[in-house]
Amino acid sequence: MRAPPAGPGDELGAIDTPALLLDLDAFEANIARLHGDVLPTGVAIRPHGKAHKCPELGRRQVAAGAVGLCAQSLGEAEVFVGAGIGDVLLSNEIAGPDKARRLAAIAGRATVAVCVDHPLQVAELAAATAEAGTTLGVLVEVATGRRCGIGTVEEARRLAEEIHAAPGLELRGVQAYMGSAQHLRPPGDREAAIAETAERAAPIRDALGVTHVTGAGTGTYPIEVASGLWTEIQPGSYVLMDADYAQNQQPPPFRQALHVLGRVISTHDDRVVLDAGHKAVSVDRGPPVAPPGLEPSGISDEHTILTVLDGAPAALRTPIRLVPGHCDPTVNLHDWIVAMRGDVVEEVFAVEARGA
Amino acid sequence: MRAPPAGPGDELGAIDTPALLLDLDAFEANIARLHGDVLPTGVAIRPHGKAHKCPELGRRQVAAGAVGLCAQSLGEAEVFVGAGIGDVLLSNEIAGPDKARRLAAIAGRATVAVCVDHPLQVAELAAATAEAGTTLGVLVEVATGRRCGIGTVEEARRLAEEIHAAPGLELRGVQAYMGSAQHLRPPGDREAAIAETAERAAPIRDALGVTHVTGAGTGTYPIEVASGLWTEIQPGSYVLMDADYAQNQQPPPFRQALHVLGRVISTHDDRVVLDAGHKAVSVDRGPPVAPPGLEPSGISDEHTILTVLDGAPAALRTPIRLVPGHCDPTVNLHDWIVAMRGDVVEEVFAVEARGA
Repeated sequence: MRAPPAGPGDELGAIDTPALLLDLDAFEANIARLHGDVLPTGVAIRPHGKAHKCPELGRRQVAAGAVGLCAQSLGEAEVFVGAGIGDVLLSNEIAGPDKARRLAAIAGRATVAVCVDHPLQVAELAAATAEAGTTLGVLVEVATGRRCGIGTVEEARRLAEEIHAAPGLELRGVQAYMGSAQHLRPPGDREAAIAETAERAAPIRDALGVTHVTGAGTGTYPIEVASGLWTEIQPGSYVLMDADYAQNQQPPPFRQALHVLGRVISTHDDRVVLDAGHKAVSVDRGPPVAPPGLEPSGISDEHTILTVLDGAPAALRTPIRLVPGHCDPTVNLHDWIVAMRGDVVEEVFAVEARGA
Repeated sequence: MRAPPAGPGDELGAIDTPALLLDLDAFEANIARLHGDVLPTGVAIRPHGKAHKCPELGRRQVAAGAVGLCAQSLGEAEVFVGAGIGDVLLSNEIAGPDKARRLAAIAGRATVAVCVDHPLQVAELAAATAEAGTTLGVLVEVATGRRCGIGTVEEARRLAEEIHAAPGLELRGVQAYMGSAQHLRPPGDREAAIAETAERAAPIRDALGVTHVTGAGTGTYPIEVASGLWTEIQPGSYVLMDADYAQNQQPPPFRQALHVLGRVISTHDDRVVLDAGHKAVSVDRGPPVAPPGLEPSGISDEHTILTVLDGAPAALRTPIRLVPGHCDPTVNLHDWIVAMRGDVVEEVFAVEARGA
């Protein structure tokens, strides 16, 4: 792990660039907003740790009423459990006896659950828990699109039988998460997509004789909360936000808490060049957004070119904040989150699950 | 740094996924091809370390006749010098006294040079070398597009005067690298772009009274080598290759040495789902390429969906190699390069400059 780019008390100009910044005021406001809206409904909040990969941010979410965290990879789950998060759902499938063994091992240290959509996964988990002497929660994932999940009541019943037959496995419920609905722009399209997901999930829940249904993301969670079907939501991006999610609703319900800080290393009449490129900010959902008067017009591995639309070009050394297009893979590029209170560093958090 | 995903002697199926694989036969063939073509011309080869961020691969390039490495960030330069690479060019601008100090510090341990395009950078480097008592090489960068660099002989002369006035700085030559030419598909377009770059660089070289011109990448280096202007080339991708560069020329002059290994975690009639998404393979130049009969039809943070065009869907656990669209940012997502000889792991190399 690299040296942190800043320390507590540093001002913006002293931060080594490129760096990942967290606006603590915005982060705290985002937690207050979502948790304040959802907790009174009785629906549980299990924030997705894949967004921040940072146990310290997860601990703050748990302290604000979350039941635990989601992880999207075994490596993330290992980091979260190792850091003391007491309840972790691996909201994804794994395959292979080695990964099953590692998951069974951490189930001895926390409440751990995982999704399945195939009998072989159940068999691998059953063998691993038997060997480790631990208990894993299991959720049957319902197909909501073209990714993982089962589509029929018959498949669900078969999986449930095998789960019930394994002493180390406990059937906890159903996962129904529709990723592709999160960024549908018209609110009606998101509602229709989640209604369709509910129609697929309800019969499977009923056939399995369970009540727990987990799913939902930052783009759709109010719909799942209002549905009466979901008992737990898994939003991740709400604490950080990004340019893509900001287009879902105007004004966005959450504040932009995450920025990538670059510094001007070359300045010209019509443009400035920053020392932050797509090794510092992910472009899988489009380029980052620059401050007013500047527009990204080129991005390469270590550079972002900002065309000057308005005003004089910034001087060499000037630090400039970019809003990432997509928060999750951007965080995964950094070892440290520099937590700011205004323009002063308050704390620096390790992105412990980076690359995991 | 995470635990390595494999160890020497492991077979393909035992590698923890997702993982970054290097085909050593292809890597060695690529070095033999480019170095064999270029060394007899007398033009120096300074491979770009931003492609692999791995000192061990750099040492093998130097052992095969390279004069040293390029780095694209200060952090990369620090890692390469720290790992014993004796000659490193930071082929980029830096800004700010802290970065200048760090660069001057490593100049006491290796031959180190850096690019400039502004008098303030020269002043910062002059102050830092004076303080450290070291000597830095300096190259004046020529603007070839919209990124960094100066455009006029007058600017070059002014920079040269300030470089000559600083006891710790040595004017080494000119950098003229046209990144935007590397992926122009028609060979004639690449030739025209490099001819234009030469027209910009030659008068600046002459005005500065230097002979050394460095630049060129994997997509254009034969043109620069043949030009008579360039004395050093900076190709990076040639040792690894990616799907984007493979489209430049059919058949590609270099073999695909880099793959991302995923494993089937969900299988369906029409598709399989891998445990490798855009946190394991960069999509800034398009999706990865799958083996024959499979086509990527969706990619998210931790998943790639492969539509089955031909044959039966692969079974759960099956390892599948993907060819990254862009090698540099893909390598930057991984802590380890698993070096394979055929389907058996020979060595595992740390990506020491990952995130640097």
